[in-house]
Amino acid sequence: MPGAVITLLTDFGLTDSYVGAMKGVVLGINPGVQLVDLTHQVPPQEVHQGAFLLGQAWSFFPAWTIHLAVVDPGVGTDRRALLVNGKGHWFLVPDNGLITFALPPEQTDRDIFQPYSADVPDGFHAYALTNQRYWRQSVSATFHGRDIFAPVAAHFSLGVTPEELGEPVDTLTRLAVPALQWQGDTLQAHVLYVDRFGNVVTTVPAEALVSVTDMELELNGIRVRGLVPTYAQGDGLVALIGSHGYVELALTNGSAADDLGARVGDELLIRRC
Amino acid sequence: MPGAVITLLTDFGLTDSYVGAMKGVVLGINPGVQLVDLTHQVPPQEVHQGAFLLGQAWSFFPAWTIHLAVVDPGVGTDRRALLVNGKGHWFLVPDNGLITFALPPEQTDRDIFQPYSADVPDGFHAYALTNQRYWRQSVSATFHGRDIFAPVAAHFSLGVTPEELGEPVDTLTRLAVPALQWQGDTLQAHVLYVDRFGNVVTTVPAEALVSVTDMELELNGIRVRGLVPTYAQGDGLVALIGSHGYVELALTNGSAADDLGARVGDELLIRRC
Amino acid sequence: MPGAVITLLTDFGLTDSYVGAMKGVVLGINPGVQLVDLTHQVPPQEVHQGAFLLGQAWSFFPAWTIHLAVVDPGVGTDRRALLVNGKGHWFLVPDNGLITFALPPEQTDRDIFQPYSADVPDGFHAYALTNQRYWRQSVSATFHGRDIFAPVAAHFSLGVTPEELGEPVDTLTRLAVPALQWQGDTLQAHVLYVDRFGNVVTTVPAEALVSVTDMELELNGIRVRGLVPTYAQGDGLVALIGSHGYVELALTNGSAADDLGARVGDELLIRRC
Repeated sequence: MPGAVITLLTDFGLTDSYVGAMKGVVLGINPGVQLVDLTHQVPPQEVHQGAFLLGQAWSFFPAWTIHLAVVDPGVGTDRRALLVNGKGHWFLVPDNGLITFALPPEQTDRDIFQPYSADVPDGFHAYALTNQRYWRQSVSATFHGRDIFAPVAAHFSLGVTPEELGEPVDTLTRLAVPALQWQGDTLQAHVLYVDRFGNVVTTVPAEALVSVTDMELELNGIRVRGLVPTYAQGDGLVALIGSHGYVELALTNGSAADDLGARVGDELLIRRC
Repeated sequence: MPGAVITLLTDFGLTDSYVGAMKGVVLGINPGVQLVDLTHQVPPQEVHQGAFLLGQAWSFFPAWTIHLAVVDPGVGTDRRALLVNGKGHWFLVPDNGLITFALPPEQTDRDIFQPYSADVPDGFHAYALTNQRYWRQSVSATFHGRDIFAPVAAHFSLGVTPEELGEPVDTLTRLAVPALQWQGDTLQAHVLYVDRFGNVVTTVPAEALVSVTDMELELNGIRVRGLVPTYAQGDGLVALIGSHGYVELALTNGSAADDLGARVGDELLIRRC
Repeated sequence: MPGAVITLLTDFGLTDSYVGAMKGVVLGINPGVQLVDLTHQVPPQEVHQGAFLLGQAWSFFPAWTIHLAVVDPGVGTDRRALLVNGKGHWFLVPDNGLITFALPPEQTDRDIFQPYSADVPDGFHAYALTNQRYWRQSVSATFHGRDIFAPVAAHFSLGVTPEELGEPVDTLTRLAVPALQWQGDTLQAHVLYVDRFGNVVTTVPAEALVSVTDMELELNGIRVRGLVPTYAQGDGLVALIGSHGYVELALTNGSAADDLGARVGDELLIRRC
């Protein structure tokens, strides 16, 4: 597949040349691949933030895209390196939960990861990358992105099969995602992400509010009434369904996060009115 | 056009995965396109800064390049989304002035935007993007970059015509650009942009000074005499014609903007000596 | 070579559209080239940091890659612009030492730069870029990245020969790299680089310690005993051989540079125990 797409998501930043070295390794093996950065600005070693960003972006790419994601505080230990297949996409990730938001949340690992079968071509499959033949010859203990994930991604994009790259596994590490809790008319949720604009993305998906006609949101003691359809509508602090598909708090021409002092993990309450 | 080039300029930053999602949408429609980032670090919702940066970069690309630019505080309202053609290039922009510095400044909209005619193949044309057939099926109210501009750019790169994408228009929004004013021997101008090096780009194009043999510049009470040919010549604070083609203030091995306390919009005076 | 790879390393940052303009110039000449960013976040005019990052990344790319690197405080003066060939790679750089870490350190320029000969096809060669035919028609005094290096890289990627681009030279500028000094059982070295994670890379290559079985490192009065194999092993501040191949100081789940107050150039002592 010379026209294959490999996306890259890391916490390597753009100041050092780590990302460049990874891309060099890929192009040395498959010069025809299209490389696309998702982001390299995941805060250092923040697996949860990386998982959210990967979960937000992957589905907009065409089927067969290879998503190489490395936020990897356990690099060099015995944590596994994985190739995961789901919904026609392929993920190369350390086994530390980075894949969490790309998996269906409602099923257990043993339900979704089953040996490949021609009967279920679009099932989920996972493999531990164990075949050193497809790694760089000299693997450093601190940079598996360059020495394992990048060459494996490139070989895979050329048609090497998952079975050649490693061995099937049927469990993997997932991050704990705090469940939404209705207590009477109050839904307890949390801040999931804060974006560049200071928009505060919460753990509440649009679906959770389908039966709620009017509501009040409270975060850090500040209350907002109802949802508006767009950023530009309403004045000051507003709540809306953001492009992520979650309830979001936003401030017209400003940063809601600054205004609310909001940080990832803060508690949000939504009350039915 | 599988080898088409699409440039991207946004205020989405590189920390979130918004830009990645846009690129995924483009590649899902035209996998053969070449994507080039102009910048994604326009300060949030600063249309004027985005317009300057777009105006500086577009002309260095080959003819037929598609420039997709999204700095869009009015997203989700009834502001139009435009396809604009000029000098062989194509621009996809919200109708909020982001196109300003890519248009000839001296002409009115009605003079330059005329229905396409085979007689004037290199004229300017503008279209409002109204045909939802070329948008993503589900359009969010907050992310038209991903849901409208990206798919339209990709379809256009594959040969869909402007007439299929929308309807001709003959006016659009332009930013007010403060005119240069000579009062006797004094030219009143402004700071247009401050770059990463702290170089202070002014609104004075090289052409405005052709008849001026010697001059003194004053910004925030600090005066500089004459122009030097290069950054490395002269000592301390200098003025020169920068690569943008405008008069620029620079500090050898330092930031002129810090030294002058200069910000976009500050007044600059140039006196003929 | 339509599938040629051109890497880019600059201090232009990602906020302005300077990098975009360079890429536009390249694509206008060779639309089929693959452009890869090494980094554009070299601190403004820090040639030494740029040289280190170029030296770290280039060798991971395939042979025949063209590395275009511009950190160029002397732009517009009579410093030469160079094309340098070594180990199958090609470098386009200002002659200010930016090439230093891509050259073999142990040889003198006159030993390594010799006129091209079919007998030594993999030797090193250097050329001063003097043929204006391959530059942009109008060359600004302040942006040779866009006006000289970018078009020369593009023409070279299409098969224009080094001899057509300029004239052979047999010396160039190298940065002084402080030599390692053993005094008895103490090795005096320095901080070479601090990365995004706060890892402190030193001037001590792994090879310098092959005969040392146990050691103590001291930086800014803080001491660390021995080397660990990975970041995740050990507790608190550790020393290890990093992915760069140099001794590195790291802090588990934190920034060693902040902890140590370490900056580029600080002295490091290693004592044999």
